[in-house]
Amino acid sequence: MNSELNLKLAADFVDAAYVRQGSEAMKAREKRITSLLAQRKLPAQGWDDLSIKLFLAELAEMDSNNFAHNAGAGEREARVASSIVADRCFHLAHGVGRSGDICAIQPKAAGSSLLVQLTNVLVKDMLHIAGVKNAKCAIVLPVATGMALLFSLLTLQAKARAAGARAKRYVLWPRIDQKSCFKSMVTAGLEPIMIENRLDGDELRTDLEALEAKILEVGAENILCVLSTTSCFAPRGYDRVEEIAQLCLKHEIGHVINNAYGLQSSKCTHLVNQAFRTGRVDACVQSTDKNFLVPVGGSVICGPHPAFIQEIGKMYPGRASNAPLLDLFITMLHLGSDGYKALLDERKVLVPYFKEQLAAVAEACGERLLVTPHNDISFCITLQKSVDQQPQPPSGDATKTKSATFLGSMLFSRGVSGTRVVSTTDSKSIAGYPFPGFGAHTDAFPSPYLTAACAIGMTKPDIDLFVQRLHKALVEFQKA
Amino acid sequence: MNSELNLKLAADFVDAAYVRQGSEAMKAREKRITSLLAQRKLPAQGWDDLSIKLFLAELAEMDSNNFAHNAGAGEREARVASSIVADRCFHLAHGVGRSGDICAIQPKAAGSSLLVQLTNVLVKDMLHIAGVKNAKCAIVLPVATGMALLFSLLTLQAKARAAGARAKRYVLWPRIDQKSCFKSMVTAGLEPIMIENRLDGDELRTDLEALEAKILEVGAENILCVLSTTSCFAPRGYDRVEEIAQLCLKHEIGHVINNAYGLQSSKCTHLVNQAFRTGRVDACVQSTDKNFLVPVGGSVICGPHPAFIQEIGKMYPGRASNAPLLDLFITMLHLGSDGYKALLDERKVLVPYFKEQLAAVAEACGERLLVTPHNDISFCITLQKSVDQQPQPPSGDATKTKSATFLGSMLFSRGVSGTRVVSTTDSKSIAGYPFPGFGAHTDAFPSPYLTAACAIGMTKPDIDLFVQRLHKALVEFQKA
Amino acid sequence: MNSELNLKLAADFVDAAYVRQGSEAMKAREKRITSLLAQRKLPAQGWDDLSIKLFLAELAEMDSNNFAHNAGAGEREARVASSIVADRCFHLAHGVGRSGDICAIQPKAAGSSLLVQLTNVLVKDMLHIAGVKNAKCAIVLPVATGMALLFSLLTLQAKARAAGARAKRYVLWPRIDQKSCFKSMVTAGLEPIMIENRLDGDELRTDLEALEAKILEVGAENILCVLSTTSCFAPRGYDRVEEIAQLCLKHEIGHVINNAYGLQSSKCTHLVNQAFRTGRVDACVQSTDKNFLVPVGGSVICGPHPAFIQEIGKMYPGRASNAPLLDLFITMLHLGSDGYKALLDERKVLVPYFKEQLAAVAEACGERLLVTPHNDISFCITLQKSVDQQPQPPSGDATKTKSATFLGSMLFSRGVSGTRVVSTTDSKSIAGYPFPGFGAHTDAFPSPYLTAACAIGMTKPDIDLFVQRLHKALVEFQKA
Amino acid sequence: MNSELNLKLAADFVDAAYVRQGSEAMKAREKRITSLLAQRKLPAQGWDDLSIKLFLAELAEMDSNNFAHNAGAGEREARVASSIVADRCFHLAHGVGRSGDICAIQPKAAGSSLLVQLTNVLVKDMLHIAGVKNAKCAIVLPVATGMALLFSLLTLQAKARAAGARAKRYVLWPRIDQKSCFKSMVTAGLEPIMIENRLDGDELRTDLEALEAKILEVGAENILCVLSTTSCFAPRGYDRVEEIAQLCLKHEIGHVINNAYGLQSSKCTHLVNQAFRTGRVDACVQSTDKNFLVPVGGSVICGPHPAFIQEIGKMYPGRASNAPLLDLFITMLHLGSDGYKALLDERKVLVPYFKEQLAAVAEACGERLLVTPHNDISFCITLQKSVDQQPQPPSGDATKTKSATFLGSMLFSRGVSGTRVVSTTDSKSIAGYPFPGFGAHTDAFPSPYLTAACAIGMTKPDIDLFVQRLHKALVEFQKA
Repeated sequence: MNSELNLKLAADFVDAAYVRQGSEAMKAREKRITSLLAQRKLPAQGWDDLSIKLFLAELAEMDSNNFAHNAGAGEREARVASSIVADRCFHLAHGVGRSGDICAIQPKAAGSSLLVQLTNVLVKDMLHIAGVKNAKCAIVLPVATGMALLFSLLTLQAKARAAGARAKRYVLWPRIDQKSCFKSMVTAGLEPIMIENRLDGDELRTDLEALEAKILEVGAENILCVLSTTSCFAPRGYDRVEEIAQLCLKHEIGHVINNAYGLQSSKCTHLVNQAFRTGRVDACVQSTDKNFLVPVGGSVICGPHPAFIQEIGKMYPGRASNAPLLDLFITMLHLGSDGYKALLDERKVLVPYFKEQLAAVAEACGERLLVTPHNDISFCITLQKSVDQQPQPPSGDATKTKSATFLGSMLFSRGVSGTRVVSTTDSKSIAGYPFPGFGAHTDAFPSPYLTAACAIGMTKPDIDLFVQRLHKALVEFQKA
Repeated sequence: MNSELNLKLAADFVDAAYVRQGSEAMKAREKRITSLLAQRKLPAQGWDDLSIKLFLAELAEMDSNNFAHNAGAGEREARVASSIVADRCFHLAHGVGRSGDICAIQPKAAGSSLLVQLTNVLVKDMLHIAGVKNAKCAIVLPVATGMALLFSLLTLQAKARAAGARAKRYVLWPRIDQKSCFKSMVTAGLEPIMIENRLDGDELRTDLEALEAKILEVGAENILCVLSTTSCFAPRGYDRVEEIAQLCLKHEIGHVINNAYGLQSSKCTHLVNQAFRTGRVDACVQSTDKNFLVPVGGSVICGPHPAFIQEIGKMYPGRASNAPLLDLFITMLHLGSDGYKALLDERKVLVPYFKEQLAAVAEACGERLLVTPHNDISFCITLQKSVDQQPQPPSGDATKTKSATFLGSMLFSRGVSGTRVVSTTDSKSIAGYPFPGFGAHTDAFPSPYLTAACAIGMTKPDIDLFVQRLHKALVEFQKA
Repeated sequence: MNSELNLKLAADFVDAAYVRQGSEAMKAREKRITSLLAQRKLPAQGWDDLSIKLFLAELAEMDSNNFAHNAGAGEREARVASSIVADRCFHLAHGVGRSGDICAIQPKAAGSSLLVQLTNVLVKDMLHIAGVKNAKCAIVLPVATGMALLFSLLTLQAKARAAGARAKRYVLWPRIDQKSCFKSMVTAGLEPIMIENRLDGDELRTDLEALEAKILEVGAENILCVLSTTSCFAPRGYDRVEEIAQLCLKHEIGHVINNAYGLQSSKCTHLVNQAFRTGRVDACVQSTDKNFLVPVGGSVICGPHPAFIQEIGKMYPGRASNAPLLDLFITMLHLGSDGYKALLDERKVLVPYFKEQLAAVAEACGERLLVTPHNDISFCITLQKSVDQQPQPPSGDATKTKSATFLGSMLFSRGVSGTRVVSTTDSKSIAGYPFPGFGAHTDAFPSPYLTAACAIGMTKPDIDLFVQRLHKALVEFQKA
Repeated sequence: MNSELNLKLAADFVDAAYVRQGSEAMKAREKRITSLLAQRKLPAQGWDDLSIKLFLAELAEMDSNNFAHNAGAGEREARVASSIVADRCFHLAHGVGRSGDICAIQPKAAGSSLLVQLTNVLVKDMLHIAGVKNAKCAIVLPVATGMALLFSLLTLQAKARAAGARAKRYVLWPRIDQKSCFKSMVTAGLEPIMIENRLDGDELRTDLEALEAKILEVGAENILCVLSTTSCFAPRGYDRVEEIAQLCLKHEIGHVINNAYGLQSSKCTHLVNQAFRTGRVDACVQSTDKNFLVPVGGSVICGPHPAFIQEIGKMYPGRASNAPLLDLFITMLHLGSDGYKALLDERKVLVPYFKEQLAAVAEACGERLLVTPHNDISFCITLQKSVDQQPQPPSGDATKTKSATFLGSMLFSRGVSGTRVVSTTDSKSIAGYPFPGFGAHTDAFPSPYLTAACAIGMTKPDIDLFVQRLHKALVEFQKA
């Protein structure tokens, strides 16, 4: 609309002065796009929905499937049968990447390609805002954290093979009881070597000595990497990532960080940033949904060395859905850096309140908040007394255990989602590997407990509602 | 996006050749807008949804409520609380018109204003396509037919008053049993004088002699206008509009045509066009929903003299919803002239099939299709035998009548909408005026009957489904 | 989905416990609908978008055009050509009303009809929340304020005529310089008699003595009604509506209140409510867009006597667009009573800040805020000194006047919308009636001035931005 | 809305008879859902958009993030920041799967989980319709074909390892020059052994003898599987998949079929079906976008043995985006089996026309259509004469080659997408493996050529437009 000719013609319908003002407004938006392309940073202030949709429509116009007179004679022409589907993808139907590289430009889809590239540069800005200033490169993959870890591992493996190091099949892994990161190793055909955590007060921390001892025992030449973790369920603290990175540097072994939802915590991002700076990190993986309030399905891989990150993109066979990138792109424009910072700040401010409220419920019920200074997202309260208090069944522990878990069901059916009750006496086997005390990140944690998270996007009313229901359920549980 | 600078910057992300191709595509769309603004005609080929939405977004950008940094300090700033609402109006929230003129340009809303003006010129093109080539001016009002008639009458009245002719309070009105056109006269404070139709074979036609006699009786100086009708339910045929127009010219009285859904019939449009050319017509009113497949709520007023049509716009007090115009604008771009012609052609082709099928059902049930050559939208079949055949109740006609109407309920509950069963013996009073035999456009039509319409947008499967259900219901009805 | 059978079948796919929880959630929403239907009040807490859309989809299901196997054989079957249009009206395409009554139920469209009825009862609740507790009936018309006034007047007129009182053709009208309310009288064929306002300090107030004198002079038997006004641009204060209502009661003449955007001010609603209680009011009209943050196009007519309000609905000839009702319905569910109250409260809290800031700018520029205690929406500052200060042109006042208006253009081009600069020396003629000093609600206001409004939906940052730009513009203006 | 109570309450607003009819309509839709859940097949007739959206909204209601009073205290609560994003995913934000299994049910998301399960059963029905009647199980993965192949291979590998067969690291692969399937082997850490195709007339076919010889040479115990291909660019024909399956059965080696866009060809589906029945196939992979007209990003893995297919789901580490499943689910409901069959039939009917038109262009330009009876999607015409005819440059072949490719650019810039010009003399290296004559599926194809596809969704006007542009470009090319 904003061509000279069209504006001139419009002035035959509407007073030129008003048309001019409309044109100024269109130019102002053009400038915002210019600024996005030139500065490669989030806008300070988020865009309104109209601007976002308009930009998406313009990008869609640049894709061949939307050319007014395109003649498509290929086997993949981004034809879309349902108008509901076409609408919901904003007519951007070509997905991302090419057969050779998930980050590659698609000749048929200039608009989609531009969206992908912009998403990658903008997400780097978000990482910087969150505190990972040393992230030199970032790519958004349309797969969740587990898969992003898998690709990081496969890429490390391919590099090792290319360098003739076929024996590197072990991954040292400070234990975290979460299935998908464990499966990422196994699916990659690698052999995880679990490093048990050490109990430090109430908290589980990385056993650095055990880790280094294991490196020496197995031999660095046989170890592909260490897979460390930041964000996790308390009472596990984040790993001693900086020291691990230094060990990896020293022993010349790879290092992948699972920073799944760590971007929301300045403690985690500081840690990652330090590790980038002072030690070795090949790739650091984070979830888009858990950090950026988008639907499940994407992840960001970043690192201090662009070359390796780009290698990961090249490992990905074929094209992929653009949905996770599109969601993130929209959300970044919507939030702007001010909006993102506000979300980070709001969480930071709520954490003490969350802990306080949780501690109050615990105390009122004869339990206590565990002291886990190295985790400021997840928190837990003991359930020992609650379980002990219950009317004693004839057959000891097993039933008690069952009871602890029953609190979880009670909460679920009362509309509380996301808490986890850990009996600490359950065991599980994943892909053939045994996990005694599964859920507790250690074989024998002293007490059953309940964890809850103060995650990004949570509000004060959310906390109040949660705590009130928890209190009620816990009281009922103790009486049951 | 399509500025030189932005394209240049985009080429840092995506190969310049692909960006260039995207830019060509954007330019091609710009040209389509140019063509719309310059030629003021429907595009031959309808636009795709992406193009339509993009254009709407660009128009919205030109409205002050969407300016990124607008400071609104008025009592009406088009703020929208719900994002559902903002989305559904494409952020075009200023409505149409100004306090002084429904067709006026809004300084705060250049985009909305342009949309209104474009809608008016494009709808004129549609009228021409449909056959009303002599329509020199057309405006779309965001009110339905009845209200558009009211405004036509009020404007005629205001003109008469301005000319000192305060006595003109009668409207001559060839009877049509439809409430809203009757109410438009009464609401305007005018006095309708009903001209009964004359039965010509099966069909009811304008009684021109009675009309002219009434003019002479009442005195032209006391008559504001004739309100004639084209599209109507059979067995009424369209009025002898051309002859009426000539009478009006001769006696210097106004003439408003109610062409509610007549645009879909080339017979009606030919008639209207002739009336414009050879007689007097002040305004001709048509429904947008019945002719153009949009939701209920708009009308088009056109005429041979732009000045009068524009007067109507000026009579409208205050602003109004843009919804009916927006719906029509989108639909016109969606259809294009090819699409609109195809709809008109499809209906024309289906009419003989519709009549044939309806006649077949009638004959199979001992009834017949009435011969109504001056109505090619609505058709009717007798129900006399069906009513007679029914097991005789003790108390004569009244019950029979009830029976006839009962067929309507049967059809309604079997998912047939839009048919009307007319007992011909019902009477009704509207605004104090008696209508004996209400529904039949005459005091005593010889037989009860059922009408059905072959309207624009109907398909062959629709006809088949309708006819099949009608047949079944009629058989059941006769047995009941 | 939520039938017993479907839930049972779903449990073959998904664990019964999770299905059950989903079913509970669906039932909870069902209950919210129950509550809406049973209590006929806004929900306390606004609904989320998903719930609103789901409810609209369910209503649409109840309309015949969406029946899976409907056979439509009428001339109006709500067929929609464009899927963009179908989407944006949520498939509710039948509009509102029937030919005989805009508030009537449509047999073909149970869902649409229910939406209309609900909208009317919910809006009554909003009126009560806003303070018009004595509103016994309310209807939402899909036309803006001017048209709603027109219909109120036409209905009064029709009633008078029906009672044999053909002479009642005057409307007494305390002057307010706004075109559409004036046109509503003229378009109705009535003769406005303007009652000049009286200057009381800085403020213009109703001249009650003059009003009553005029009643006696013209004769109550010749007067259809008084048309009074609440919300208006300062320095006009709201009319002495309560006293006017009492006069009307005493002299047995009609009374229509133009409460266009008065619902947002508790002062106005208190006034209206008192007038309902202690005097005569036939109808009170308010805008939907100015009070409820929806797009332009609807109005609410309420009054203390349901019968008269319902008469107005019956005057409306034919069907109409449902868009304004749909927008309002969505918005009412979105806001809930809490949300609406919060908007009202926010405005109330901001008014003193707005006045303070405006006064500060005025003082800084040698002007002052006018004292207008009977208007708490619109405020004004003098421009006398600013105009005087300007480099003197050779030819006196006329040019000064031009200068004052020029400030308006300056503000407009700087992205300030909604302010009005009144030179007080302009004159205008509307429909042949002269308005000396047009814009100022009086023939000769002592000083040129600028008005600005603190309207519902305005935020503190909006005020800051506005005031800052105003200051800058005013300084520039004085130097120019 | 459709509870007894709500209907009863609604009847206080709208006549009970109309409410009842609306209720019937709602029940009719309920039954369609029942039918979907009970029969696990596509509806015969596609659903309208309103029904689809309503069903999605109901599913969304069942997810905890949409519970009106949910208290989320986890690290992943499907909070969505942007309403654009929430809308476009229909509030279904939990993605698919759990950490342990991509096909697992999510306790927090009953609706999303049901959608996934339904998608999987409905897609099986689509496979059956397309001709793969022996598909006993199918899952939709939210990754494209290359990744689905990778997962099939990784699962085979894990199974082999679990069975102690660590040596199985070779994949026998009848050559097809397509990067992502090749990369799927390499990324999995496997070693592809390429089996060159044999030229049979104009066509390249599987060299079965060479394949079996290689099995014997390498040793079945070292071979993980054969990766065969159906759909491919002509002049390669589909592989002799049935015979390969029999070889695999005989030698007890795995077999994965890359049936990327083969579902649209009854020849390919027949082949796959036979292979399932008579030989060994572990998994057969197909693209969703290329077969079902949805955006890029999903694939269907099916096979004759449910256990293995389910294993693949379990290999996937973590959750994933639901976007590709949601798109497919919507599209399946939109099309219905009738719609899908119509698409398949339309393509089948167009193929002879496509070939005829392509042959005509070829002949007019002195080229010919290659005879490739075992490929009915992709077709090619020689370019030998066109290249030869060009003004001879000094330095032989290399320049000619360049010329051939130049035709591709010409077509691209003329708005023809999807054709491929193969010079047959290009070479490429993928992941370190050399591909002489890359693009032609063989080291030295006799002539340069151009391929084009008659793919699902193509229309006759598409073909005409394509052929006309091709002709024009080819003529220009010959003259250039």
